[in-house]
Amino acid sequence: MSEREDAAAVSDLTTRRRGRPRRTESDAVGTRDRILVAAREEFSERGYEKTSVRGIAKAAGVDSALVHHYFGTKEQVFEAAVEVAAAPALGARDAVVEGPLEDVGERFTRFIFGVWENPATRMPLLAVVRSAVNNETAATVFRRLVATQLLRRIADQLELPDAELRAELAAAQLVGTAMLRYVIKVEPLASVDVEQIIARVAPVVQNHLTGP
Amino acid sequence: MSEREDAAAVSDLTTRRRGRPRRTESDAVGTRDRILVAAREEFSERGYEKTSVRGIAKAAGVDSALVHHYFGTKEQVFEAAVEVAAAPALGARDAVVEGPLEDVGERFTRFIFGVWENPATRMPLLAVVRSAVNNETAATVFRRLVATQLLRRIADQLELPDAELRAELAAAQLVGTAMLRYVIKVEPLASVDVEQIIARVAPVVQNHLTGP
Repeated sequence: MSEREDAAAVSDLTTRRRGRPRRTESDAVGTRDRILVAAREEFSERGYEKTSVRGIAKAAGVDSALVHHYFGTKEQVFEAAVEVAAAPALGARDAVVEGPLEDVGERFTRFIFGVWENPATRMPLLAVVRSAVNNETAATVFRRLVATQLLRRIADQLELPDAELRAELAAAQLVGTAMLRYVIKVEPLASVDVEQIIARVAPVVQNHLTGP
Repeated sequence: MSEREDAAAVSDLTTRRRGRPRRTESDAVGTRDRILVAAREEFSERGYEKTSVRGIAKAAGVDSALVHHYFGTKEQVFEAAVEVAAAPALGARDAVVEGPLEDVGERFTRFIFGVWENPATRMPLLAVVRSAVNNETAATVFRRLVATQLLRRIADQLELPDAELRAELAAAQLVGTAMLRYVIKVEPLASVDVEQIIARVAPVVQNHLTGP
């Protein structure tokens, strides 16, 4: 969609508050972002099932039709929100895949804990995990984003017959550690310094990926 | 509470259907079990937050007051339901803790996959995991049951300064693998033979527990 069409859509559909100036073209980007921010917050707070397009629209101060116009279905809003939430991590993700194989375990581990230790990326991730555990549609989005975009790319580097299974078992160590530390909050795992965890987990991840 | 008191409570509070014979003392045990079965199904289907004591009572065909009488609060019903769901696994759990240390990783791994591969124990476990991920109270129950009753006991056997962290990181590999295989269903992990997973995971668990 062109910026011009964006602006036209906003002009048609945005719920305008009294006394605010008319929107210009540059507002279109702002509106789309505002919907995404609202979507992320709604999905975080309520989970996938209880979140509605109407609720997202209300939180963003726009008409539901505008949410549909930009993103389509609730599933597509969710996927867009997850992608935006993951965006700060994308550069690091590429570094995981592209670096030398002999320390891919360390890079993969630091990437995952980097995302979880940062409050800005932890909250949306929590929302995704909660949604994926509870809802089949959200699980599909999670599979597509994590499995396809990250694990397949790591597996491709390995050039081993069971590379995908290895990548998934490495991910399982990281997913489980994150679950117990950040979600279930089992002690002492929830409180120890993250470097102590990385020191124990990175060699396990490395061994899953390139070991015997 | 004595059986006599149980029976009196049942007689006072059970919603009696027309034409059914008067309840006897032995019905008290049946009623308590029926509430637990109903509770497990309600928690499985709706998750912790959406389940109510009233809904459990209705599903069991008894008055809400009877659920409170036997179990107390919703949290306490949940804990009782989880304990009952875990009961078939308790013998195996003791075997995990009590066997020789050199193959504790194999026993721990087989115990966890034994519970998950069995549909009768998988469903209640799924309910617990879903609830624990979404609700702080359910997470507390999960921590108490899993962390205290299983991980602490394994850690006690190790006699190492960081034994608890080791037990938790071992559990993290198992929890994460179960999440990706049974909940998120990432392929190929979701479909490969469980023995192929055990062969890769058991040495990792062993190494977390007793390795360098």
